[in-house]
Amino acid sequence: MTRHAITESRRRSLGAIALLLAATPAFGQSAPATVVSLPELLQASPASDWRKLDPADTLYLELPTGRAIIELASAYAPRNAAAMRALVRESYFDGSFIVRAQDNYVVQWSRLEDDERAKQMTAKKLAPAFARPIAGAPAFTRLPYPDTYAAEVGFAAGFPAARERRRNETWLVHCYGMVGVGRDNAADSGNGSELYAVIGHSPRHLDRNITLVGRVVQGIELLSVLPRGAGPLGFYEKAAERTPISRARMASDVPPAERSELEALRTDSKTFRALVESRANRREEWFKEAAGRIGVCNVPLPVRKAQAPARP
Amino acid sequence: MTRHAITESRRRSLGAIALLLAATPAFGQSAPATVVSLPELLQASPASDWRKLDPADTLYLELPTGRAIIELASAYAPRNAAAMRALVRESYFDGSFIVRAQDNYVVQWSRLEDDERAKQMTAKKLAPAFARPIAGAPAFTRLPYPDTYAAEVGFAAGFPAARERRRNETWLVHCYGMVGVGRDNAADSGNGSELYAVIGHSPRHLDRNITLVGRVVQGIELLSVLPRGAGPLGFYEKAAERTPISRARMASDVPPAERSELEALRTDSKTFRALVESRANRREEWFKEAAGRIGVCNVPLPVRKAQAPARP
Repeated sequence: MTRHAITESRRRSLGAIALLLAATPAFGQSAPATVVSLPELLQASPASDWRKLDPADTLYLELPTGRAIIELASAYAPRNAAAMRALVRESYFDGSFIVRAQDNYVVQWSRLEDDERAKQMTAKKLAPAFARPIAGAPAFTRLPYPDTYAAEVGFAAGFPAARERRRNETWLVHCYGMVGVGRDNAADSGNGSELYAVIGHSPRHLDRNITLVGRVVQGIELLSVLPRGAGPLGFYEKAAERTPISRARMASDVPPAERSELEALRTDSKTFRALVESRANRREEWFKEAAGRIGVCNVPLPVRKAQAPARP
Repeated sequence: MTRHAITESRRRSLGAIALLLAATPAFGQSAPATVVSLPELLQASPASDWRKLDPADTLYLELPTGRAIIELASAYAPRNAAAMRALVRESYFDGSFIVRAQDNYVVQWSRLEDDERAKQMTAKKLAPAFARPIAGAPAFTRLPYPDTYAAEVGFAAGFPAARERRRNETWLVHCYGMVGVGRDNAADSGNGSELYAVIGHSPRHLDRNITLVGRVVQGIELLSVLPRGAGPLGFYEKAAERTPISRARMASDVPPAERSELEALRTDSKTFRALVESRANRREEWFKEAAGRIGVCNVPLPVRKAQAPARP
């Protein structure tokens, strides 16, 4: 027994990657028996398979332990993203708190209930974005494997998503790290002033019931390790247990020197298709039987520090 | 916006529960429009729908923050469970550590690599239990919903499981809280001296590739909040980051006064069927559209303090 337990351990040279990329135009086909690690695959990817995060859609949450970075899903929840952006610019979340951490479920943040600004938000309504029409939606990279909850699952604009053509609807799904707009019983009672992030097995029963507005693309581990609240639903019972959010800002409002410049792998790229194929068919020596398939919430969505452009 | 965000909020009287229990003999049927909360459902369940955990299959891990309790899956991994039991009785894990915490994946514990007893275990082989024959396996309560990874999924002996009749095989699946036997590349290199627990979205690609030996039935939140390791695969790089396990004991070796007496809802019981049905079809006012289905790793597996037997 060594530190290789529960992981791949055999890696091949980078030379095999071009072959893999070339040989996997679609999922479900038999693929070459090359073994390429995820880091190798990403390292070999062309710059054009990556997109820089839009600073206007990038939210920084400054926590005592560091910065958590959320990408907003403007193509799926434009009004909710805009409402959040406006709240952030009004410094609404500066001095807010993680008020809830429920194990295997969510962490949630907001201003405190007895706070004057929070009270003003209580009655504020906003049309939800549980789903949107397929027409006009970002390109959908479909997974050809069955899903428990939806007719079709895949990825769009970097987010895990689902769709149902009969209803002409597509929606984001509750995978690990997804961020949603907390609401009360009324569908329009979520207004962006209370947000949650998924920190456990994907609670897919929430899909189409609550507005997903983004994804934690860096720093989810700053949220997932927070002590669980002892109160009902994981709410903290003592003020001292709450983690303060000292500041929340849109990246576009942050001086360039203080920004975390990130880029995400395009989910409609060739590299992403190769990634899905290689994760559905694990060929590393450690694996004795590849699944031959992969769940939508098991596919990694790589994000990395933005690379310097190549010299002309 | 109130503290009811992201949850059920309307509850009905206990009177409705008997009706629900009576009216849901099987999944997939249209069900009555009663709303029964999970606590209410469990409270109304007969004592015969619960089973006391077998002290010989119950492992206590004593952590600085409390006791984590693992139920061993002797029906699925008898040799591996026996090996673990033997190691526990030899005090092998007293003075072991959580050596790894990888976000959205696993925590792992063992003695340290340079420890003499750990070195002695390195070459010890043990036949794995990736799957077992269906014949003779515990009763399988099947979920009638599609699963990405397996032909059939459900529950057996209190654990999430899958099966494939064509292969005459059944196996446990990697849901949140499941405990497995770390191994190196060789299938028989896992011997019970390195163990892991799932603390993120279910890594189902590990199914049938590694021996699952149990489930954390209480105290998973003591493991899931541990700071993530900064090294490769989430291994801690500094000794001080490791959480010590002061003591590991089988409940059967613990004086009764120090035991945590627990009982688990039988997964072949009527109450469990009602639970699955009510979680697949959320009728609480908060939900606007019930999924009508549920994933195997989204079904709660209730465990509670053992109830005093009713007076004769």
